[in-house]
Amino acid sequence: MEFFDAVKQRYSHKELFLPKPVPLSDLEKIADAGLRAPTGNNSQCVRLIILPDRASVQKLCDIAPGKALQSAPSAIAVVTGPGNRFQVEDYSAAASQMLLAAVALDYVSLWLDSPFFDEERQKAAVKALGLPEDYHLWVVLPVGLPDGSGSRRDKLSFEERVSYEIFGKQKTG
Amino acid sequence: MEFFDAVKQRYSHKELFLPKPVPLSDLEKIADAGLRAPTGNNSQCVRLIILPDRASVQKLCDIAPGKALQSAPSAIAVVTGPGNRFQVEDYSAAASQMLLAAVALDYVSLWLDSPFFDEERQKAAVKALGLPEDYHLWVVLPVGLPDGSGSRRDKLSFEERVSYEIFGKQKTG
Repeated sequence: MEFFDAVKQRYSHKELFLPKPVPLSDLEKIADAGLRAPTGNNSQCVRLIILPDRASVQKLCDIAPGKALQSAPSAIAVVTGPGNRFQVEDYSAAASQMLLAAVALDYVSLWLDSPFFDEERQKAAVKALGLPEDYHLWVVLPVGLPDGSGSRRDKLSFEERVSYEIFGKQKTG
Repeated sequence: MEFFDAVKQRYSHKELFLPKPVPLSDLEKIADAGLRAPTGNNSQCVRLIILPDRASVQKLCDIAPGKALQSAPSAIAVVTGPGNRFQVEDYSAAASQMLLAAVALDYVSLWLDSPFFDEERQKAAVKALGLPEDYHLWVVLPVGLPDGSGSRRDKLSFEERVSYEIFGKQKTG
């Protein structure tokens, strides 16, 4: 898919997924796109866990209830180890590239992080994914085909968010 | 450009840029791609300042010395206002989409943030960009054509960073 088409088509799919499995090769293409994201000081601190089928996704469903994870045929978990200054920047860049990659392969996905803010759920997720105790799960991206079109939220206009030359200056002419 | 080609071609261009100007319409396409990135709780807290020519980029050169900004014909500054929990995630997702968008339009760019970690330089940049005092400049993305090919750093392999089903498990079969 053309790059800007992927950017325009991406949205956060919070609804149900179809049960149709995603080929492992597609999940690996998505993961590869995430690993090619920029990384602070080239630390490459992001690690990915591909959850290739319902059984592996199911392990997170009690921890993170919700339509998306309960129905997604596959997912990718994004984690980092301890002691990196840029781990939030790095996981975010990797996640956003993977969301676009999923769209470029005609899937939908979602930046699912809020369940893992809770300390107890985070601990449970670390255990379920077999992570060392000093690792952190930042986000899980369910991947699959949508069951229905999903909703989009209102967005501010380009003009409300972009200035020219200096903050607050609009385009002249 | 095809999405996965943009992902594969992107690198951090820390060297000189050619002086050839970038059409404003291309900078706006890049900015638009950044604004379409996911944003925590749909806050859309990221604001962009397009620096469309050398004169507007020059304002940051004393604050952030380096080959890239000293030669780039244009840049995009990524800022947020106060009080958003997800501002690091949001600016990172926007920045990574813009870096890819620049590549998709055959330019090169760079995630240039380190000069702005310093408190005094941050204050100077906030002033130079006309930002309210409670705003923060996170990153500047120089945009243009490269003067030379630029260097790439060594990367870990896919296998070193990806597990299957559970952390540390490699692909079977």
